[in-house]
Amino acid sequence: MTTILNYIENNKQRFLDELFELLRIPSISALPEHAPDMLRCAEKWVELLKKAGVDKAEVCPTDGPPIVYAEKIIDKTKPTVLVYGHYDVMPVDPKNLWNTEPFEPVVKEGRIWCRGANDDKGQSFMHAKAFEYMMENGILPCNVKFMFEGEEECGSGNMLKWCAANKERLTADVILVSDTSMFGQQDPSITTGLRGLACVEVEVTGPSHDLHSGLFGGAVANPANVLCSMIASLHDEKGRVTVKGFYDDVEEVSAADSAALAKAPYNEEDYKNAVKVNKLTGEAGYSTQERTGIRPTLDVNGIWSGFTGEGSKTIVPSKAFAKISMRLVPNQDYKKIGQLFVEHFESIAPPTVQVKASFHHGGPAYVSPTDSKGYKAAYAAYTEAFGKEPVPFRSGGSIPIIAAFDQILGIKSILMGFGLDSDAIHSPNENYYLFNFYKGIETISYFYKHFVQ
Amino acid sequence: MTTILNYIENNKQRFLDELFELLRIPSISALPEHAPDMLRCAEKWVELLKKAGVDKAEVCPTDGPPIVYAEKIIDKTKPTVLVYGHYDVMPVDPKNLWNTEPFEPVVKEGRIWCRGANDDKGQSFMHAKAFEYMMENGILPCNVKFMFEGEEECGSGNMLKWCAANKERLTADVILVSDTSMFGQQDPSITTGLRGLACVEVEVTGPSHDLHSGLFGGAVANPANVLCSMIASLHDEKGRVTVKGFYDDVEEVSAADSAALAKAPYNEEDYKNAVKVNKLTGEAGYSTQERTGIRPTLDVNGIWSGFTGEGSKTIVPSKAFAKISMRLVPNQDYKKIGQLFVEHFESIAPPTVQVKASFHHGGPAYVSPTDSKGYKAAYAAYTEAFGKEPVPFRSGGSIPIIAAFDQILGIKSILMGFGLDSDAIHSPNENYYLFNFYKGIETISYFYKHFVQ
Repeated sequence: MTTILNYIENNKQRFLDELFELLRIPSISALPEHAPDMLRCAEKWVELLKKAGVDKAEVCPTDGPPIVYAEKIIDKTKPTVLVYGHYDVMPVDPKNLWNTEPFEPVVKEGRIWCRGANDDKGQSFMHAKAFEYMMENGILPCNVKFMFEGEEECGSGNMLKWCAANKERLTADVILVSDTSMFGQQDPSITTGLRGLACVEVEVTGPSHDLHSGLFGGAVANPANVLCSMIASLHDEKGRVTVKGFYDDVEEVSAADSAALAKAPYNEEDYKNAVKVNKLTGEAGYSTQERTGIRPTLDVNGIWSGFTGEGSKTIVPSKAFAKISMRLVPNQDYKKIGQLFVEHFESIAPPTVQVKASFHHGGPAYVSPTDSKGYKAAYAAYTEAFGKEPVPFRSGGSIPIIAAFDQILGIKSILMGFGLDSDAIHSPNENYYLFNFYKGIETISYFYKHFVQ
Repeated sequence: MTTILNYIENNKQRFLDELFELLRIPSISALPEHAPDMLRCAEKWVELLKKAGVDKAEVCPTDGPPIVYAEKIIDKTKPTVLVYGHYDVMPVDPKNLWNTEPFEPVVKEGRIWCRGANDDKGQSFMHAKAFEYMMENGILPCNVKFMFEGEEECGSGNMLKWCAANKERLTADVILVSDTSMFGQQDPSITTGLRGLACVEVEVTGPSHDLHSGLFGGAVANPANVLCSMIASLHDEKGRVTVKGFYDDVEEVSAADSAALAKAPYNEEDYKNAVKVNKLTGEAGYSTQERTGIRPTLDVNGIWSGFTGEGSKTIVPSKAFAKISMRLVPNQDYKKIGQLFVEHFESIAPPTVQVKASFHHGGPAYVSPTDSKGYKAAYAAYTEAFGKEPVPFRSGGSIPIIAAFDQILGIKSILMGFGLDSDAIHSPNENYYLFNFYKGIETISYFYKHFVQ
């Protein structure tokens, strides 16, 4: 029997060729014009999973991008692992900041450069290859199911409905997900928590049309200035979010959580250098790890108003807009927070303008149990692959669907991520180290061995 | 001899046809790609002025859009009127808010709808037709010179140089300008003051690239949030601009000025309805007329950062930008104010981001003497044409070049504007009433008669 290491060594190039077929499809779920690409990407996944050895694989239609479902049932009495991933990616703008074509994968400096190289095509693909290895060598020890959605970057709305409607065939003992990162290539870690998310959009309307800033400036409220003041007021001088009731349900950090977080091999200088800022900031009284891991936050993701072209246009704009997202922690209800934001934002609107705030989408936070069979198998797998024990930590990111799996299917998820913070996911020049890619395939194959023990 | 009223009556359609040839040329000076249109527009003007009867007309090249110069010298011993106007127009966006094609003039409800219908193609064209009338009927009482530039909406930078280099041929007794508005169709007014202008652009840089708002949100300063806070801080709770030294040189309102402004037939309800706002705002302690006429202001003309497309993208943007303009009053030096803004804005930058502020362009405020020959002739002309005396008032708008004419050429300008505040200049659906258009031609023809008396 070939070892996983030999199997990887002998198939390295083929693995990349197959992954690149997925990466070349611009499956941007946020942009409606890419709907055909979503379908192409789903069909490509079905083809790849069949090649890897599943009994059946299908494209399941939804009201949005389709969901890919596949399974290999070796023995109904054996345990079942349900693998989740997503094939949709984030938009690529600002495109001019990319050093290579966003959807033409390039291998350079030991990394794959392409939108989706990590998030999440690269990471979910590792599961297909670990599965393929076990099939080829007749050592798959349990049943495996795959479900890959195309709307994770937009809130997984249709995935939720689909799960609720397919509880039966989705029965499993654990959900395995690779859509997070670890501390470093030599510092394995397991994500034990994810932040929730609430996305809103706001619109401030002043005059009925853009006005001449000379004839009306100073007498008619400028919606761009007003929006700036309203957004500025969303944080107090301590860096706390001022939305009324925002912190009411926030779970305070336990001594144990603080201790676990403190164990993380975190270096502030490295962190600052990675994003090229001179000084960090955030909620007073908390460390950087706490600010991103266990405290809720509010960020403007986009803002626009008036004339943004070259040159100048001296106007009082008619409207101003902003997209705002809030990261939430355990116990915060994302729908309630969304509602609190809408009420708060409209309540602080001055009488000189019209303000509309609307809740877009979101999802709850998630904390995974560290005493479960799945967690212990993941822990053993990392230890075997990296030769050192992984560190459990809370990620600042959100995968809304993970908490939903727990609620709808009653199945806990184990977050075996292999990315690095330097992978620039959601940014120009997203990349994924070949080392992490191959190490992930190896680690995942070990997971199955330990899980059925 | 035909009266001006008969001449207008007999040539109405031709006047429109000729004006429309100018209006159809998209001479947007702010957008470099329209450079060829600037030249076409200047050449069209030369053709129209020759038709109207000038001795010579030429396109004068500059480092920017060319300047149109033409003259009719009947007798060097007679006084000379120098007519100034501009053939460049503002950008048209947001284009989707236009009810007609921005550059295809349409006559509807007694108005011409088109970018430039008023500002300033429509208004400057009236001078060519009043001149034509006097030529056709052999009653031109003095010398006339025309200069039309193509960069007024961008600060008239090259016009300044051109004037300095052409002092000789620009000698005149008065400069006549129609680029302002009057109170109402039955309420003639003469603009006796213009605000100055200082345009700046600011750029706030946070992380080196857009970041995942989950992994970094809460720990890395968000440049969009920071920009909002910085802009919010530019006004205090009294609506005063907080830029250090901003009000140092502001000329306080004299009792006479206040009295003159108070005479204006101003109705707050009409004013609010014209722009569809429920409540007005501005610097505490001043009336709307004062806020727009004799007090300096600061407005965001445009702001942009992060993801502004459909859907959502949960990032901490790398950069945030804003275009800001300040309207200035007599005694405020626009270059000094621009510098004060740059220093102030960079001084309030938090250490978590990099801030760059740059001065774009601007111009000084202007106050025209009400005891001059030119002003008295304009006053008499309005009285004759409208059957009632015009009201002198200070406009909130800026025509930077007007003050420069005084400084460079030593010639005072008389602002005979015929627009209305409802003409939506600088906005979608710019328009100009046929009534004002024809009435302007009539009034201008009377000006010459009174000027030489």
